[in-house]
Amino acid sequence: MEYILGENHMNHDLEIANSVSALPIADIAKKLNIPQDVLIPYGKDIAKIPLTYMDQLKEKQPGRLILVTAINPTPAGEGKTTVSIGLADGLAKLGKKTCLALREPSLGPVFGIKGGATGGGHAQVIPMEDINLHFTGDIYAVTTANNLLCAMIDNHIYQGNELRIDVKSITFKRCMDMNDRALRNIVCGLGERTDGVPRQDGFDIAAASEIMAILCLSTDLDDLRRRLDDITIGYNLDGEPVYARDLEAGGAMSVILKEAIKPNLVQTLEHTPALMHGGPFANIAHGCNSIIATKMAMKFADYTVTEAGFGADLGAEKFLDIKCRNADIWPDAVVLVATVRALKYHGGAKKDELQEENLEAVGKGIVNLDRHLSTLKNVYGLPVVVAINRFVSDTPAEIELVKKHVASAGGKAVLCDVWAKGGDGAIELGEEVIQSILHHSSPSHPYDYAAPIMDKINDITSRIYGAKRVDYSKAAKAKIAMFEKQGYTNLPVCIAKTQYSFSDDPKKLGAPDDFVMEVRDLALCSGAGFIVALCGTIMRMPGLPKKPAATGIHLDENGNTVGLF
Amino acid sequence: MEYILGENHMNHDLEIANSVSALPIADIAKKLNIPQDVLIPYGKDIAKIPLTYMDQLKEKQPGRLILVTAINPTPAGEGKTTVSIGLADGLAKLGKKTCLALREPSLGPVFGIKGGATGGGHAQVIPMEDINLHFTGDIYAVTTANNLLCAMIDNHIYQGNELRIDVKSITFKRCMDMNDRALRNIVCGLGERTDGVPRQDGFDIAAASEIMAILCLSTDLDDLRRRLDDITIGYNLDGEPVYARDLEAGGAMSVILKEAIKPNLVQTLEHTPALMHGGPFANIAHGCNSIIATKMAMKFADYTVTEAGFGADLGAEKFLDIKCRNADIWPDAVVLVATVRALKYHGGAKKDELQEENLEAVGKGIVNLDRHLSTLKNVYGLPVVVAINRFVSDTPAEIELVKKHVASAGGKAVLCDVWAKGGDGAIELGEEVIQSILHHSSPSHPYDYAAPIMDKINDITSRIYGAKRVDYSKAAKAKIAMFEKQGYTNLPVCIAKTQYSFSDDPKKLGAPDDFVMEVRDLALCSGAGFIVALCGTIMRMPGLPKKPAATGIHLDENGNTVGLF
Repeated sequence: MEYILGENHMNHDLEIANSVSALPIADIAKKLNIPQDVLIPYGKDIAKIPLTYMDQLKEKQPGRLILVTAINPTPAGEGKTTVSIGLADGLAKLGKKTCLALREPSLGPVFGIKGGATGGGHAQVIPMEDINLHFTGDIYAVTTANNLLCAMIDNHIYQGNELRIDVKSITFKRCMDMNDRALRNIVCGLGERTDGVPRQDGFDIAAASEIMAILCLSTDLDDLRRRLDDITIGYNLDGEPVYARDLEAGGAMSVILKEAIKPNLVQTLEHTPALMHGGPFANIAHGCNSIIATKMAMKFADYTVTEAGFGADLGAEKFLDIKCRNADIWPDAVVLVATVRALKYHGGAKKDELQEENLEAVGKGIVNLDRHLSTLKNVYGLPVVVAINRFVSDTPAEIELVKKHVASAGGKAVLCDVWAKGGDGAIELGEEVIQSILHHSSPSHPYDYAAPIMDKINDITSRIYGAKRVDYSKAAKAKIAMFEKQGYTNLPVCIAKTQYSFSDDPKKLGAPDDFVMEVRDLALCSGAGFIVALCGTIMRMPGLPKKPAATGIHLDENGNTVGLF
Repeated sequence: MEYILGENHMNHDLEIANSVSALPIADIAKKLNIPQDVLIPYGKDIAKIPLTYMDQLKEKQPGRLILVTAINPTPAGEGKTTVSIGLADGLAKLGKKTCLALREPSLGPVFGIKGGATGGGHAQVIPMEDINLHFTGDIYAVTTANNLLCAMIDNHIYQGNELRIDVKSITFKRCMDMNDRALRNIVCGLGERTDGVPRQDGFDIAAASEIMAILCLSTDLDDLRRRLDDITIGYNLDGEPVYARDLEAGGAMSVILKEAIKPNLVQTLEHTPALMHGGPFANIAHGCNSIIATKMAMKFADYTVTEAGFGADLGAEKFLDIKCRNADIWPDAVVLVATVRALKYHGGAKKDELQEENLEAVGKGIVNLDRHLSTLKNVYGLPVVVAINRFVSDTPAEIELVKKHVASAGGKAVLCDVWAKGGDGAIELGEEVIQSILHHSSPSHPYDYAAPIMDKINDITSRIYGAKRVDYSKAAKAKIAMFEKQGYTNLPVCIAKTQYSFSDDPKKLGAPDDFVMEVRDLALCSGAGFIVALCGTIMRMPGLPKKPAATGIHLDENGNTVGLF
């Protein structure tokens, strides 16, 4: 992401990234005691780590896990990934054996609205260009596995439809790693008789697909296969579910994913090891890197820093309630990232006035931080450190106001300056996080897996979002009844809603409480093991803006990429 | 491909491939004098070679180029890729510095009808599983560049359509590396107002896309960019062409393709170096590996063995008339692959009778070989060696018949047995090919680039296929007039037709001559630099069979792939 907010932030991330030479990836692996011959190289600065290597580490105790999350994002920028990277570099500077566990970027946003997912300034993972563009092909494997299943569904129907699939009931959609609004709703199978059977379909972005969720929630190859087989693709004419296993698709899908399931090792600009693996979005999916990569990092390092997408209402909630429960892990500490600018924006300041000191707006907007802080402490019982991610426009009075406010709520806020200083900008934050880890807290959740689906949704929306009520569409109610009848009551709920607000309305900033959540539809992900509740108008396939970032990207005369961030 | 035709052919290719240990890829590179630090590793057994390395070889004279092509394929199997690989191994055994230049496989057929593109038996390139499944992601990059352009087209229209694109005139389609008949004809842009503008569209398989052709025909990064910019996406409301450059898409597309344009180095089972790069199909596209890889191989090796898809009517014609002209190269010799079984099939024998000796059928079917042989010698002026690719069911009398027949036509046919014996099975073939290279022949073509489009099509169909006439649909005639009016008369023609016959009817085996070619439509590929003429009912997006090969593919309990070929 390019921060164009102050003079010392004018350097482009790609230039900073290219100014640092990567260490040989074997040297990075060595920091985690991984022998070179274990690595599967992808280009010179990336390696995959085979799952079989974990067999050798069975007896090893896992290290500490630190979750980095944030307040609700705003156009002002928060820098959750940047702080995660800077914090890991800071911990490494403090002499701690540290590893990052991050998501890998989707291509869609890269060509849409300028912005990557490799941090910024002096807190980046490299090779940022490769990571943002193609990396090791994991997301492509997800796309291919997804679309093979779709092709097999349509082919089955065309070839006689032995399973009696009701073409109007197919819920499993095609996907693509692209921001392409025109593919949200399509009719396929048009043309001649041999061109298949016409039906309504659509594409989701790959990062929102059930296959991506499965890749990230699987604990090993057997679990992957089981989850793939368990995908519900739709229903037959008797209303009974049809699974991927009925189409004999699970085996080929697992073969397609067999390399993608191996975590990718890269490094930060300061040569801290980072596993980047899996990339579900947090608004329309569950928003966390893979369980396999996180558990691997915890075996390798004494401190693993991981992040979960967007604000704590989406990312942290899903991390704690879906990922941690599947993985049987629990964080030792949480870092809640905020910026003065974003707090001002939550407090009502306009986008073009964020440069100016505005204590009133900070004071008003801090309610957003308050609610996240309270949830993490009180609902989940976790120790939290607030990280104020410094921007040049921040004034001492504004920073002081945030610190005092957090202190008055019994918390601790630390200024960090990782964009400009890398790990040196997160030394205090690192020390504070280490101190906050007093004991392993036991997992605590806002809802019970065994509760009825509506109760779970109500618990999340009331306890995490602050909603006063949930309204369900007729379609949503019917789906809930159907899923419970099918025996899926026990699945956790993955809420899809805007990231900009606690509510389902992106314009309700700060900490709204007088709002009703609208659940317009639900989707069963019986393979991934959750039920998606679609709230508000959120789309699972983004669109491109009027002037896509792609129009500014090209190769210069030396074959170097320009215009990427 | 799995040959299930005789007892000694019962081993599965994957098992044979897995029984051989690959040499470190650096050792393979060393055989071509490529220093290890030049290589970009992808996994342990694959490396990409950067284009910049060629700058160091500017003064080096290129070696000899051998094109392997075949008679029209039949369900009996011909083994063109297998012979190419065996021949390269044979030449290496003869002490020649040899390199293969092959296409990389598409995933579509892998999950459709059992069969890969890495040879068979003891004449294979490895790691066959990785190559067939994901390789280095080149085809995905092609898909992504293609679909980014499509997303930008639809987004442009949605965002106000400043270029006044006529939505009914868009010719540039989406693509996917999948056999998916249901995507041939779609309507996209359905749904709400923000879901784009509805229009008819469709997906081609990635191997048939113009982007794939561009990747394979580009000579360097600048040429790549120019060709991407020059893609015609459709027309505006005044009927004027709209190009990719008008959407400012070329830069981002070239960035997406910047790794894909680097050739991939792998090895045969006998450790002969092989560059596998680019994978257009030969029936619905131009059917050759990349120009960059072929020219690279020719700089590296004294003998480069390359192949062009399907029969010589499609593969060799396009290789010689499109690729060679773009690349300014010309083969020194041609190997024409035939099997006794396929000749029998062309001669009217039934598929289940191919095991039995049938001299009459061989004698009748050999007309197919005759016509290809005659074309290569008389139209293109090339020295040709016929390679009889041995199957266990071949009888001595049948083999003798083919040899005598070819000799009587002034040619030479050599038996080779590379499936069972690898390079040892192609020693005689290798010697014969070397002997056939007497002098560099000058290029000769069946048509003149400058001729009117219809003349070019007529020349190919009469001189190469033996058609008595070409019929053009009304739509085809209108397109030809339009393309010529737009100044595209000078482009070569890339015929899309069935691979099974010289004609556009897959059932007309042997050497039909009393047939009319039906040109039903044309497509302008102004970026790739050719005009596609669609003949008969050929589809640019294949479908899956009733029981897709995917249903038999899975991972075993040790995580190894089973059922792949």
